Amino acid sequence: MKQDTGKFIVIEGLEGAGKSTAVAAVKSWLAQRGITDIVCTREPGGTPLAEKMRSLVKEVSDETLADNAELLLMYAARVQLVETVIKPALARGAYVIGDRHDLSSQAYQGGGRGICLQQIQQIKQAVLANFSPDLTIYMDIDPELGLSRASARGELDRIEQQALAFFERTRHQYKSLVALDPHAITIDASKSIEQVAQAISLALTEQESRL
Amino acid sequence: MKQDTGKFIVIEGLEGAGKSTAVAAVKSWLAQRGITDIVCTREPGGTPLAEKMRSLVKEVSDETLADNAELLLMYAARVQLVETVIKPALARGAYVIGDRHDLSSQAYQGGGRGICLQQIQQIKQAVLANFSPDLTIYMDIDPELGLSRASARGELDRIEQQALAFFERTRHQYKSLVALDPHAITIDASKSIEQVAQAISLALTEQESRL
Repeated sequence: MKQDTGKFIVIEGLEGAGKSTAVAAVKSWLAQRGITDIVCTREPGGTPLAEKMRSLVKEVSDETLADNAELLLMYAARVQLVETVIKPALARGAYVIGDRHDLSSQAYQGGGRGICLQQIQQIKQAVLANFSPDLTIYMDIDPELGLSRASARGELDRIEQQALAFFERTRHQYKSLVALDPHAITIDASKSIEQVAQAISLALTEQESRL
Repeated sequence: MKQDTGKFIVIEGLEGAGKSTAVAAVKSWLAQRGITDIVCTREPGGTPLAEKMRSLVKEVSDETLADNAELLLMYAARVQLVETVIKPALARGAYVIGDRHDLSSQAYQGGGRGICLQQIQQIKQAVLANFSPDLTIYMDIDPELGLSRASARGELDRIEQQALAFFERTRHQYKSLVALDPHAITIDASKSIEQVAQAISLALTEQESRL
């Protein structure tokens, strides 16, 4: 564990994949190592202005939000969070645990909506350059199971209301991208909360050299 | 005048340059030619969702909006307007008069904020490809005169509150870009409303072959 620089750990996955469980497991693993300066973020959102951008993409509206407008709003919120919260936290040596980050846009807007991945990466490169997580934990779940968990929690937002095929494309994209990313690991999120928490703890210990 | 396809005429310029006067002059010139299907838009904004994005960039807030987040919000609003209003109007053969469009981002975020022009054009290309106005009318004005006109109208918004040097850089960028754009013309906006309206009418008649 190098504590002289902060580290950015991101949790990714479909609705109902248990991202909150994963965040708690990461926090607990860090706490066991005496790390107390931990900042938790969520995307889109995480600052007052970014939360307003979140509302624009999440709220059900009479007006159809164009796919590219959705994509740009996601990046606007991300840039606001990265510049005003994540980078300053990392600069002082904090650990940042992100509930979603850039991979979500590539999976949802790329895979789900079908926007060309090259176009998304062009925008990413223009506004965030090479900023990226030290570790991404992808919580893999079958969309049907995930959505049944998510809908049990309450009303579904605009994105959660998409058809099952949308989430199947999103999952497919997640898996393809995670397979290519040496900083990303996959957790089987269909298991019980206890099993998932234990799997994350084990995976973090395996990845300890990069944290 | 080819009426089989719509045309997109954009008014650009600093605060207080008289863009509303210019819009009225264009409408009147089109009306004299029997054109009745005219759609007026403004950026950022022009649809209920895009107007909410406008509020995020215009409102004075305790939180500093990151320059790149501002840029992405401008493009999110633009894409929403282009896809849901401008393109459908042009497709049915309407004339669209835009109060600001893409050149504003290149001038304000590029010149004013100092974001690299190549980066802005990379985003533009990713989400709007080669969509561009048939004619841009740039209303050139000294920032001091423009701002004194704008402040006489009422309270200044977050962008209008920038220092004079910001608008000087913006004007410089406008002039450089307009000089390179064969579809853009410059109007001296320091003149009286009547003189400006007449200059626009004359310029439109000169440009009639492309409208």
